[in-house]
Amino acid sequence: MTVLGTASPARNLVCRACGATYPLAAQHACFECFGPLEVAYDIEALKQVTREQIEAGPNNIWRYAGLLPAGQDEAARVTLNPGLTPLVRADLLAAELGITGGLWIKDDSANPTHSFKDRVVSVALSAAKALGFQRYACASTGNLANSVAAHAARAGVPSVVFVPHDLEPGKIVTTAVYGGDLVAIEGSYDDVNRLCSELVETDEFEDTAFVNVNVRPFYAEGSKTLGYEVAEQLGWRIPAQVVIPMASGELLTKIDKAFEELVEIGLVEAPAEGWTVFGAQSAGCNPIALALHNDTDEIQPQKPTGIAKSLNIGDPAAGPYALESVRRTGGWMEYADDEEIRAGIQLLARTTGVFAETAGGVTTACLVKLVKTGRLDPAKETVVFNTGEGLKTIDAVAEQVGPTYRVKPSLKAAKEAGLL
Amino acid sequence: MTVLGTASPARNLVCRACGATYPLAAQHACFECFGPLEVAYDIEALKQVTREQIEAGPNNIWRYAGLLPAGQDEAARVTLNPGLTPLVRADLLAAELGITGGLWIKDDSANPTHSFKDRVVSVALSAAKALGFQRYACASTGNLANSVAAHAARAGVPSVVFVPHDLEPGKIVTTAVYGGDLVAIEGSYDDVNRLCSELVETDEFEDTAFVNVNVRPFYAEGSKTLGYEVAEQLGWRIPAQVVIPMASGELLTKIDKAFEELVEIGLVEAPAEGWTVFGAQSAGCNPIALALHNDTDEIQPQKPTGIAKSLNIGDPAAGPYALESVRRTGGWMEYADDEEIRAGIQLLARTTGVFAETAGGVTTACLVKLVKTGRLDPAKETVVFNTGEGLKTIDAVAEQVGPTYRVKPSLKAAKEAGLL
Repeated sequence: MTVLGTASPARNLVCRACGATYPLAAQHACFECFGPLEVAYDIEALKQVTREQIEAGPNNIWRYAGLLPAGQDEAARVTLNPGLTPLVRADLLAAELGITGGLWIKDDSANPTHSFKDRVVSVALSAAKALGFQRYACASTGNLANSVAAHAARAGVPSVVFVPHDLEPGKIVTTAVYGGDLVAIEGSYDDVNRLCSELVETDEFEDTAFVNVNVRPFYAEGSKTLGYEVAEQLGWRIPAQVVIPMASGELLTKIDKAFEELVEIGLVEAPAEGWTVFGAQSAGCNPIALALHNDTDEIQPQKPTGIAKSLNIGDPAAGPYALESVRRTGGWMEYADDEEIRAGIQLLARTTGVFAETAGGVTTACLVKLVKTGRLDPAKETVVFNTGEGLKTIDAVAEQVGPTYRVKPSLKAAKEAGLL
Repeated sequence: MTVLGTASPARNLVCRACGATYPLAAQHACFECFGPLEVAYDIEALKQVTREQIEAGPNNIWRYAGLLPAGQDEAARVTLNPGLTPLVRADLLAAELGITGGLWIKDDSANPTHSFKDRVVSVALSAAKALGFQRYACASTGNLANSVAAHAARAGVPSVVFVPHDLEPGKIVTTAVYGGDLVAIEGSYDDVNRLCSELVETDEFEDTAFVNVNVRPFYAEGSKTLGYEVAEQLGWRIPAQVVIPMASGELLTKIDKAFEELVEIGLVEAPAEGWTVFGAQSAGCNPIALALHNDTDEIQPQKPTGIAKSLNIGDPAAGPYALESVRRTGGWMEYADDEEIRAGIQLLARTTGVFAETAGGVTTACLVKLVKTGRLDPAKETVVFNTGEGLKTIDAVAEQVGPTYRVKPSLKAAKEAGLL
């Protein structure tokens, strides 16, 4: 079994459940207890990384290569060079909501395929290449499919991505256009994911890296870059509150982990009052938020519904860890129904110029609820994560918005319409 | 009449036709000859700008503020901070086309509203704010509308944008979602443009900056940043050949002007053999290319057809200047029909991971033709400009691409489908 080389600060894989350790290979579950594996680092190596090194690096996630498990060698990366996306000051939105402590949108729709998935795919496929894989694959609710297909196209490597058959056209076309194989599965995302877990064990897929299955531990680490960037963009400071959408729950846990790491290795000072993590789900798929609201550790799988398809994971793998992050930091979780999601998309666009996909509508709607219910402190600095692009889910608001006037091309017609 | 302040290196407006000069105000046509006005600079001020200053600037167009007519004061900008978009090495595409001198895609779909228009809008509206305008407007084929509406939303300023009624949904929704006024005109872009030229003269629109009408000279300068960035990203070097899509023709002339300026003010060395400028249009709207092919200076206005709507300007204002640039540099122009445009989009996506809108398909298809006909030298370094995002025109390829497999979620079904 091939393992990652020594340039990486990663030391091994460790089971999140029982703590068993494994080499840095393509393995995602513990042989002892079937718990999920995570990358563990040589902390002394991480401590060598300085702000100056990072700031002198490229304007993308690879400025943090010293904190990632793969991609240290620029020439060996499989990447579209995502990251260093805008942290947008949202003063108009803050004013509407009564947030006085400062509000920011971390806008990851600015990535090459317009979602945060480019981050995780770049790290996963750079690891996959180092591990000797010859084909790239994933199970996806859409954004991941776009990203894997585009990465594979740029690298000239075959790809095969698996999606639910009923995805938005904006996510089907933007995957298929790159020319790899696109497999539409007649089932939910959870069905797709289960099939991929079976395929990865077959001989025919032995040469295939499923970014969120067999190389998942490396994949998940890519999300940490969102936390690193926010801290750096705030002037090496961790915000008091963050609001993060949840599908598998992994993104939330990794942003929290990124903040912890930054403090542990001395790149930022520990905030006196710590930080608080809030999670956002849609009402059509809210197993993690429901567990929190019901004060239980048991996450009941759901059959997802609703327009926020990119968040529609009914059996969220990292749900327990997301619960742990939110509880430990004194945060909360909310969920928003389709009408609230549509309103959230429009509110965010109207006040910030950021047009988010449905997931961003979820997060904005949940921000509104968290303020209204007093769970989120309006006097504290808050960063909201927009993970995707409105263009991919335009149907969500196509009936809500449109031309405000329709006129013939003459001054007379413009006058009659009330424009003059 | 308000004029721009002294922080700007711009000195005055000058008529491109007769050379008459005017103050830096909201004026776009010469009072003497009705020729188009352009910004002229204090060359000595431009010569003060150094590579080091630029490289130490922000990761967006404002690193070139010292070379632009507006936006020197960060706090007074109206901007989404576009620019410094990826210059993507396209080795796989080069190999398919037999280009040996190096091929790059300047991918401006990475801008905040995913087209190069964010550049020109940021410069135009920063000038407009300095000039005292209270409302932002434009005539648009879609991308400009998206950008003006988003800029206005971020700034909290009212907007009113005018578009042809038959635009792609991806461009209607992405404008309307920002909450400003959106006026659908029952006519072509040229009709829309004419109406805006009339509206701008009315009392009701006295407080309104139409980015591509009354503040057009400032607007047009924003396109220069594409040329600056390419040179900087190549290590302060001008590429031997550039291939640029044409609507009004202005983008092409401004990239050429940017290269000239960089040489004139000493930021780059003049290439021994100069540079060659190539223009790309769609067959459904090719007035500039036809004039070149017919060896005439007379550009015959057309009624545009075809899928490349963002390029559908039948009466291109800067056409004569685009002809001049291409002739002076020994270049050529090509045009591509709808089938070639669709193939161009797919070719670019498959070989580079860049999913372009129809305009990018036009440019890629014209690149293919320029190589085949020998007009473009495959042994020389070439930069191709992708100005927009495939997500905005997904209908263009929606029937060409799709799932390659459709299967039930089981290993058995995957086997039967030939995946195993």
